[in-house]
Amino acid sequence: MSQGRLLYAQSGGVTAVINTTAAAVIATARAHKVPVLAARNGIIGALREDLIDTTKESAAAIRALRHTPGGAFGSCRYKLKSIEQNRAQYERLIAVFKAHDIRTFLYNGGNDSADTALKISQVGRELGYPVNVIGVPKTVDNDLAITDCCPGFGSVAKYTAVSVAEASLDVESMCASSTKVFIVEVMGRHAGWIAAAGGMAARKAGEPPHIILFPEIAFDEEAFLARVKAVVAKVGYCTVVASEGLKNAAGQFLAEAGTRDAFGHSQLGGVAPVLAQLVKQRLGFKYHWALPDYLQRSARHLASKTDVEHAWAVGKAAVEYALAGKNAVMPVIVRTSDAPYRWKIEPAPLAKIANNEKKLPKNYITRDGYGITAAARRYLEPLIRGEDAPPYLRDGLPDYVRLKNAPVRRKLPRYEIAD
Amino acid sequence: MSQGRLLYAQSGGVTAVINTTAAAVIATARAHKVPVLAARNGIIGALREDLIDTTKESAAAIRALRHTPGGAFGSCRYKLKSIEQNRAQYERLIAVFKAHDIRTFLYNGGNDSADTALKISQVGRELGYPVNVIGVPKTVDNDLAITDCCPGFGSVAKYTAVSVAEASLDVESMCASSTKVFIVEVMGRHAGWIAAAGGMAARKAGEPPHIILFPEIAFDEEAFLARVKAVVAKVGYCTVVASEGLKNAAGQFLAEAGTRDAFGHSQLGGVAPVLAQLVKQRLGFKYHWALPDYLQRSARHLASKTDVEHAWAVGKAAVEYALAGKNAVMPVIVRTSDAPYRWKIEPAPLAKIANNEKKLPKNYITRDGYGITAAARRYLEPLIRGEDAPPYLRDGLPDYVRLKNAPVRRKLPRYEIAD
Repeated sequence: MSQGRLLYAQSGGVTAVINTTAAAVIATARAHKVPVLAARNGIIGALREDLIDTTKESAAAIRALRHTPGGAFGSCRYKLKSIEQNRAQYERLIAVFKAHDIRTFLYNGGNDSADTALKISQVGRELGYPVNVIGVPKTVDNDLAITDCCPGFGSVAKYTAVSVAEASLDVESMCASSTKVFIVEVMGRHAGWIAAAGGMAARKAGEPPHIILFPEIAFDEEAFLARVKAVVAKVGYCTVVASEGLKNAAGQFLAEAGTRDAFGHSQLGGVAPVLAQLVKQRLGFKYHWALPDYLQRSARHLASKTDVEHAWAVGKAAVEYALAGKNAVMPVIVRTSDAPYRWKIEPAPLAKIANNEKKLPKNYITRDGYGITAAARRYLEPLIRGEDAPPYLRDGLPDYVRLKNAPVRRKLPRYEIAD
Repeated sequence: MSQGRLLYAQSGGVTAVINTTAAAVIATARAHKVPVLAARNGIIGALREDLIDTTKESAAAIRALRHTPGGAFGSCRYKLKSIEQNRAQYERLIAVFKAHDIRTFLYNGGNDSADTALKISQVGRELGYPVNVIGVPKTVDNDLAITDCCPGFGSVAKYTAVSVAEASLDVESMCASSTKVFIVEVMGRHAGWIAAAGGMAARKAGEPPHIILFPEIAFDEEAFLARVKAVVAKVGYCTVVASEGLKNAAGQFLAEAGTRDAFGHSQLGGVAPVLAQLVKQRLGFKYHWALPDYLQRSARHLASKTDVEHAWAVGKAAVEYALAGKNAVMPVIVRTSDAPYRWKIEPAPLAKIANNEKKLPKNYITRDGYGITAAARRYLEPLIRGEDAPPYLRDGLPDYVRLKNAPVRRKLPRYEIAD
């Protein structure tokens, strides 16, 4: 039997290093003479038979892909329905695979994608067209089960820790006559992994950030204000790292509670400005706030070397697993030692990963709810370690690549999907 | 006559490289055996006789200072009144100088600081205590007269260009099914220098950012929305760089116009969320916005090498000018060639710099008001060129230094100033 072709697709929110995984997939497949197709805009492209021929890309372009942020082939937020609800979609995917001799499908995403990957492998077998489906981990949210960490998280963690350290030095130098409270809002709607990473900015007790607000801990306005006041009294200023997913005791997102615009619409997004207003109104301190948003998850210029190595390793292993006949698995990162940091890649069944969510462990948050523990630091430190700066061109910008993304000629009828 | 001591003070908003200038001042003075004192929290420390003895810092600490963001001795936003209004303040400064044998005063700041420096040099002569006063340029706003550019600007410019490029790759990969409009708000209350730098993210026509909103151009809602719509139709998404100082035709800041919080207070800060709401309400596009705030001006990890070299050179020249007996001057950056980029440092009279403001030239903005011209690119490109990453420790964070900042024993009575 021919090895056929390998189809690679990116899914969900992209990261600073998802293209590192893509580059590893392509480079490893090329070494094994397996042609790689990519789905344009993730699973949507696979359904629409909108495929990209990566064999048209030069070796230099694939090398540059390793250090380019974003998702080079396009990603999407599109969750396939269950087989029971929309079997036709799964059958369409298998038809596309068959038409293009695709024998391996690598789906690079998070929880939902692991579930989709698992179902595709089942449907393929039922329809007599076996496909080796391998899930490849990726998410800045760091919430995948089984794996010790998720490629993409280490870099956003490093960006957050470095940015908090830098901005705090700025605030510290001005606080005698200017800003006293500085709030950085970070991603993490459901789990406080990135907020926790902000805590790594402090090398010693007392260093900023002084307060971390986790989505796991209900926001207590009075306690927060008292803490801000005490910190400003003691060190002259206060740096706060706030998770976008911060909720009040009633379970409402702070970012959606309270503020309305001039038209009466609730002001979308931004827990930082809500907290800043509170500090201003109740304590009278001059404040500033930052909301790096996509900047944090695309900051390839400040990627963690550990993260880049993980991202490469899972891409390489995914191809090797498929070629070895493995199916319905995901290469996961297994930590074997904290210090020295040691890790390896192992296959884990998609069934154990799909639709699970790994929360920030309770023992990573200090008892007062505002900081990270030594256990959290032991976990996080290796993940932000090392640098892997992209090459820069003479114009002062990184040498990021835009691929040709040459389309593969369609062989099947058009297929409409809801947007 | 003894050379006496040199007093160095930082003023106004700090930058990623103001400490590079401080390190150059201290290293150069040490080479000439001149002891350097620093004022704690800028001119406030000088008035209060709150001085720091930099001779207590190790050579290693001063080397690390070169790559540490923030203002190591503290800065302040405090403008001295005119001599006519508060002559006593100027006399107090001279008294402090006299008490500590300070014969040279280096004031590292912007327009206001140049004015203050000039006045101090005048009062000193009047009181029979001549001090060589040298202004040292610094400001991310890039608005000082005479000098070709201001140390601090090149690094925030590079940060902005790189961040816009990176985040745009992220948005581009998701736009088929997710965010279509991404807005980054940058500093620049009065001049669009940093906004213009965002334009450097585009290497070719059509690359992001697609729209730059300058404070120099009154915001035209309909034209803006039409442009966003057209860009999304053409390339699938639209990246907007918006200056915090954006105003409407009536001259009001957009960040203050329109939105009110639940208590009816006008929502302070954030032109990006105002634009985002507009895009959502009028065009229905899914949006994201980022507001890096202090992160942009403290991002020493992404400093421009040109900027670091400028920052060092002005610090070194300032000491040399003082030792050569120059007074009431500022070392400024003179560009002698765009390509290859060549520059030198020359003294310029403070009188020509004080209270002036350099605006973004009209010919740097494209006729449609939404982009930068080739002339702007010629000016900006050398300023963001080159990298000067700080060293990182094994914990994944840059090796930034906090100085000892050992206090100098007071010799004068206390002096109260309004906060």
